[in-house]
Amino acid sequence: MAKIPRTKSNDHSAQMSQTRRDFIEAQTGVALTHTGHYSVPEETLEGNIENFTGVAQIPVGFAGPMNINGEHANGEFYVPMATTEGTLVASYSRGMRLTREAGGVTTTVIDDAMQRAPMFAFKDAREALAFGSWVKQHFSSIKAACNATTSVGRLRDIEQHAVSKLRWLRFNFTCGDAAGQNMVSKATKAGCEWIMANYPAPIDHFVLAANLDTDKKHSHLNSLHTRGKRVVAEVTLPRQLVTDIMHCTPEALYKQRQYSNMGAMMAGSVSNGAHFANGITALFIACGQDVANVAESSAGFTFAEITPQGDYYFSVTIPSLIVATYGGGTGLATQNECLNVLGCSGKGSVNKFAEIVAATVLCGDLSLGSAVVSDEWVSSHERLGRNR
Amino acid sequence: MAKIPRTKSNDHSAQMSQTRRDFIEAQTGVALTHTGHYSVPEETLEGNIENFTGVAQIPVGFAGPMNINGEHANGEFYVPMATTEGTLVASYSRGMRLTREAGGVTTTVIDDAMQRAPMFAFKDAREALAFGSWVKQHFSSIKAACNATTSVGRLRDIEQHAVSKLRWLRFNFTCGDAAGQNMVSKATKAGCEWIMANYPAPIDHFVLAANLDTDKKHSHLNSLHTRGKRVVAEVTLPRQLVTDIMHCTPEALYKQRQYSNMGAMMAGSVSNGAHFANGITALFIACGQDVANVAESSAGFTFAEITPQGDYYFSVTIPSLIVATYGGGTGLATQNECLNVLGCSGKGSVNKFAEIVAATVLCGDLSLGSAVVSDEWVSSHERLGRNR
Amino acid sequence: MAKIPRTKSNDHSAQMSQTRRDFIEAQTGVALTHTGHYSVPEETLEGNIENFTGVAQIPVGFAGPMNINGEHANGEFYVPMATTEGTLVASYSRGMRLTREAGGVTTTVIDDAMQRAPMFAFKDAREALAFGSWVKQHFSSIKAACNATTSVGRLRDIEQHAVSKLRWLRFNFTCGDAAGQNMVSKATKAGCEWIMANYPAPIDHFVLAANLDTDKKHSHLNSLHTRGKRVVAEVTLPRQLVTDIMHCTPEALYKQRQYSNMGAMMAGSVSNGAHFANGITALFIACGQDVANVAESSAGFTFAEITPQGDYYFSVTIPSLIVATYGGGTGLATQNECLNVLGCSGKGSVNKFAEIVAATVLCGDLSLGSAVVSDEWVSSHERLGRNR
Amino acid sequence: MAKIPRTKSNDHSAQMSQTRRDFIEAQTGVALTHTGHYSVPEETLEGNIENFTGVAQIPVGFAGPMNINGEHANGEFYVPMATTEGTLVASYSRGMRLTREAGGVTTTVIDDAMQRAPMFAFKDAREALAFGSWVKQHFSSIKAACNATTSVGRLRDIEQHAVSKLRWLRFNFTCGDAAGQNMVSKATKAGCEWIMANYPAPIDHFVLAANLDTDKKHSHLNSLHTRGKRVVAEVTLPRQLVTDIMHCTPEALYKQRQYSNMGAMMAGSVSNGAHFANGITALFIACGQDVANVAESSAGFTFAEITPQGDYYFSVTIPSLIVATYGGGTGLATQNECLNVLGCSGKGSVNKFAEIVAATVLCGDLSLGSAVVSDEWVSSHERLGRNR
Repeated sequence: MAKIPRTKSNDHSAQMSQTRRDFIEAQTGVALTHTGHYSVPEETLEGNIENFTGVAQIPVGFAGPMNINGEHANGEFYVPMATTEGTLVASYSRGMRLTREAGGVTTTVIDDAMQRAPMFAFKDAREALAFGSWVKQHFSSIKAACNATTSVGRLRDIEQHAVSKLRWLRFNFTCGDAAGQNMVSKATKAGCEWIMANYPAPIDHFVLAANLDTDKKHSHLNSLHTRGKRVVAEVTLPRQLVTDIMHCTPEALYKQRQYSNMGAMMAGSVSNGAHFANGITALFIACGQDVANVAESSAGFTFAEITPQGDYYFSVTIPSLIVATYGGGTGLATQNECLNVLGCSGKGSVNKFAEIVAATVLCGDLSLGSAVVSDEWVSSHERLGRNR
Repeated sequence: MAKIPRTKSNDHSAQMSQTRRDFIEAQTGVALTHTGHYSVPEETLEGNIENFTGVAQIPVGFAGPMNINGEHANGEFYVPMATTEGTLVASYSRGMRLTREAGGVTTTVIDDAMQRAPMFAFKDAREALAFGSWVKQHFSSIKAACNATTSVGRLRDIEQHAVSKLRWLRFNFTCGDAAGQNMVSKATKAGCEWIMANYPAPIDHFVLAANLDTDKKHSHLNSLHTRGKRVVAEVTLPRQLVTDIMHCTPEALYKQRQYSNMGAMMAGSVSNGAHFANGITALFIACGQDVANVAESSAGFTFAEITPQGDYYFSVTIPSLIVATYGGGTGLATQNECLNVLGCSGKGSVNKFAEIVAATVLCGDLSLGSAVVSDEWVSSHERLGRNR
Repeated sequence: MAKIPRTKSNDHSAQMSQTRRDFIEAQTGVALTHTGHYSVPEETLEGNIENFTGVAQIPVGFAGPMNINGEHANGEFYVPMATTEGTLVASYSRGMRLTREAGGVTTTVIDDAMQRAPMFAFKDAREALAFGSWVKQHFSSIKAACNATTSVGRLRDIEQHAVSKLRWLRFNFTCGDAAGQNMVSKATKAGCEWIMANYPAPIDHFVLAANLDTDKKHSHLNSLHTRGKRVVAEVTLPRQLVTDIMHCTPEALYKQRQYSNMGAMMAGSVSNGAHFANGITALFIACGQDVANVAESSAGFTFAEITPQGDYYFSVTIPSLIVATYGGGTGLATQNECLNVLGCSGKGSVNKFAEIVAATVLCGDLSLGSAVVSDEWVSSHERLGRNR
Repeated sequence: MAKIPRTKSNDHSAQMSQTRRDFIEAQTGVALTHTGHYSVPEETLEGNIENFTGVAQIPVGFAGPMNINGEHANGEFYVPMATTEGTLVASYSRGMRLTREAGGVTTTVIDDAMQRAPMFAFKDAREALAFGSWVKQHFSSIKAACNATTSVGRLRDIEQHAVSKLRWLRFNFTCGDAAGQNMVSKATKAGCEWIMANYPAPIDHFVLAANLDTDKKHSHLNSLHTRGKRVVAEVTLPRQLVTDIMHCTPEALYKQRQYSNMGAMMAGSVSNGAHFANGITALFIACGQDVANVAESSAGFTFAEITPQGDYYFSVTIPSLIVATYGGGTGLATQNECLNVLGCSGKGSVNKFAEIVAATVLCGDLSLGSAVVSDEWVSSHERLGRNR
């Protein structure tokens, strides 16, 4: 089969986009009419995609308003959600109404770190151990080497993980408003080059990554130690609200929580929550995030209590929420509009966005959780239906 | 803040879409110009989204051609990938070139099951055990009750998982070309209603789901027992090809595999692969899949060997690949075009699509893996860059 | 250094035992006076140990009486516990008093399987899949080959687990009163030899075990699917008893349970219980079990509820309790006495013993759990102390 | 049923031991003749057991000599193993012979920490976060409060783990030659009392432990961050030795390692090794360790390589090896003799003992691993047999 047409110069152009659509049609007989219908300027896509040929049109609906009492996000927000799954926007909206009437969702970013974890191999474990000590002693030099590669990223600390004669260094960075995966790769590489140049004893093998980061896949390590932002969203629902809006009781929700905890433990699940991934994915697509990070961001913890007053305290913790308001797809046409609707464009807005995502997740888990309990779950899917 | 405008009738219309864009602009000062630029007919979105307001334009690039020797997918394919992450399409294309020159990727769907796992609680463990036996004895009646709700879904078997006085029944269905989550919820509900009506002893509590499924989150249970399709993609790369195209050797790749296995085990990762999520997400967005299922689909296993001839056998196994070629977003404007490019529209094409996804994942893991080994990884990101 | 003395004939004798003690003293200057003080007849140890040189004297204390309402264990039991950890026997006794006054512990063996999981490798995943189907079709022949090697073990079913071109067959057996690890190894080997002799297509590689069993180490697979006995112990504690004996309330215990569940999930623990391992180990040492199986048997689940009456329902589930009342160390001098005290010697007593172990674990978790809650934990260790 | 006889004073005496044996016989009809045969002085058992009634006689065999090149253990050792599992001592001895002829096992203790993890609950996540910062600022005061309770234990650092409005502080101590669980409980309690007395803002709830430690059960957290000693044992086996003694090749062992890694990952096992638990348990029983810690100590990692020379590098890493040469059962009659044989009695010997355990584990995994590969495994069990 023929190669996909490309040009070295000016590949992100209307012409090349059309050329490739024509090529695909010629090769497969399928016209990319809708895919070719877009308004994003092609030249803005350099750095975001190769072989640009058109766009996927993902429907966006707004949920809300959602009321947040965050450290960074404060007030009411209309939340853009890009999805093709019927019921989703309606269900999140229902949760947002519930929390709004309860006075809003409290959100807190409690940790922040993006990482790259190079691995060093030695003759034996004793040499690996000595290397570990040396790295600790030379942290400030390594940090200087890392930080010199970026005006934004800052090395926070280096965790060490050891097995056999191998030692992984998990470089933790803060990355400003960027998600930072590439930033920290480059910075870590520079740090490792400094190490390789200065370590006075032999190193058998070095590689910039060997699955301890862990990037684009969930790991328990990340849930323990954070990848991206660690965010908590909390709400206390007055008993009456639960009854009126969710058609169940705090006791029924709490009972279900016990079963769900046990089910998650038995299944070996990365989350004891309901469906963090749904809200996260819809926000990620709408807002120009790296959607593949749903793999990591969808893990998390739910914790609930019945208060002495009989109200329902409910919280979600997302330990590896990887978000950006700068770089990646955040500056693109529709994505930037959606970020702007949330007031999350420009310097210093990433924690605000993280709080909005966490609050959204909380609302969605409350809504689905109570639908399951009150047996409205299957029927609402029947009503709002999926396209068949 | 004001409520988002809705109408009971005709809510999926150009007018209501415009009304909501105007509303958002009035409320937030942000014009949704690009978001309002789309060609998907609004009325086709009923059942896919509520409060439809416009679209996210996600850039689509084609990778390939990719050569597959599957049971369902055969020949060469241009693979549509929707992403905003620079390098991604180029990297997957590089892997596709490699495997194409090696004679193509062999793919096999080795298992197929979508599930819902209701939970039943009893007075004590002994009554739960008796219930379990009764369910086994009455499987055919339960199956009939389930299957009566759907012309496509077929109950395959019911796994039982027990703890304390609780018993989860994990209903496994095949679902034709649909992903089937809603189909199996409805069918399982019917099965449970039959159980509740016919079980001759007391049941303390029943709920249709309690986190053992597990839906929209990874679980070890799903990796063991499949959710969606379990697909394997394999290739044997002649040594010369590895050297020529990937600029490294089978031995170097294999050594890195050992480190990556160890890193994944230490991290407690859900995958010992490199970045399954990237390819899956890009295909899911382009092809109208439920992108939130990246949470489950991104987990998996990589297995490699050096053959006696010195070539490199490499495989990926995706145990919970949730895909559809019917229902959900598969029929929408751009999504359907992309599925059609792959020849994956219409009856009986879901396994073909599953094989294409798995082959794509394999190509991407080969490309990133060898870039890490040959130290071309950071530099290629620098060159193709991200948008900043 | 010199070789340890052995004789081909009569190595399990008082003389050889003495010879080896003399040898150790000569080599190291340490007299094995106490180690040489024992009453177990040396000749009974053939098949239990090589190079027999003496015994470890592990102190045995009795806890109880413990009241059980089991299917196999009924009535009151004095429980022999071999330990060197102060407080342990007292703490378990306290829990036994509590449950005795609550009317006893209800126990149920809800599953039973011992396994060996051979692995078969093929040219590719498609051939591995075909093999899997063939194995299902020939189950009865494979079963016959397995069962022919043992008068006790019975093949129950064969689970299949697949990745890449590899396929593990997890042979599940029932083993009468034996733990059965060796029995199932031998039987599975025979089954595999039948397969190798009869499978009509090529098999690239076969090995009797490759870590999927999993033997002598915990795995999530075993927690899901049982290794040995899956046993549940349950009790409902009247509120007054909790206050009187445990000096706390059901609400306080339940609150702590929530924290403990969350802690276990965050830690990635194999158990959300308190210290199953303590009681299991003490019983295993006293009663001639394979103590290394603490690795598997110590995992488990705790589930609790406050009843509508305000009482405290509490349960433990041990999914991989590996026990025997026949074979291994069960027939040895002190071990057999302790089994006899429990009425667990002779045919058909293994489930009785399993229930006693589970009930003991429940009593210990109640005791420690309430000590933590009522802040009596550190102080009781101070009082009953450890040897320093 | 009657209460077990006890006296407030002098309960650890020959008389009370006899009284209880008589009581058990009267109640159950079973004479504890062998159990009553012991030489350990009763009065030495105060602090080790309550209701002392006799001893379990666990057969001890010596394996070895084993050659170690450790930082703390150097030279050849006869290793005492207490077990009732036939083949075990012989198999470990075989592995010791192999490594001895290869020049010995290299061992390194690479980390050391014993912990208690109290939990603090707050009004919300923001207050929990503020608390975390305060704890960091007041570390030296907390440390002083902890260390004042013990002359041996030293607080090393406090890890923080946060979810919802909860915060766990994981206090890491070094504990000299003791295992230290009780030492750190007492010290952590003192540290927490200092916190409670000095923290200027409200704390909703405090508890000394809530399953994050994790004690007497494996957790991924412990594998990542060490509980007890983190020890590595390594050896490089000349190819000829593998062939001569193990009847297989480095390539065959390495191939099996690949399958075993994959099996362990699929099973969700806490170890990719073969049977760490066997050697650890036998040494723990013989040497007065807290045998219940097999639950934690049996987890670990195996890493292997074929060297450029074609030899076989093999290593085991035990991340949570909980050992003591002081306190607990280490001073008892037979236990102390066995520790003395290893030269592990008295001050500063705990790392030596840790290295011996790790080297033993390595020898056992080599022996079983090669038996599986060379298909001698089932047959050796048949020959040396288990008692039936």
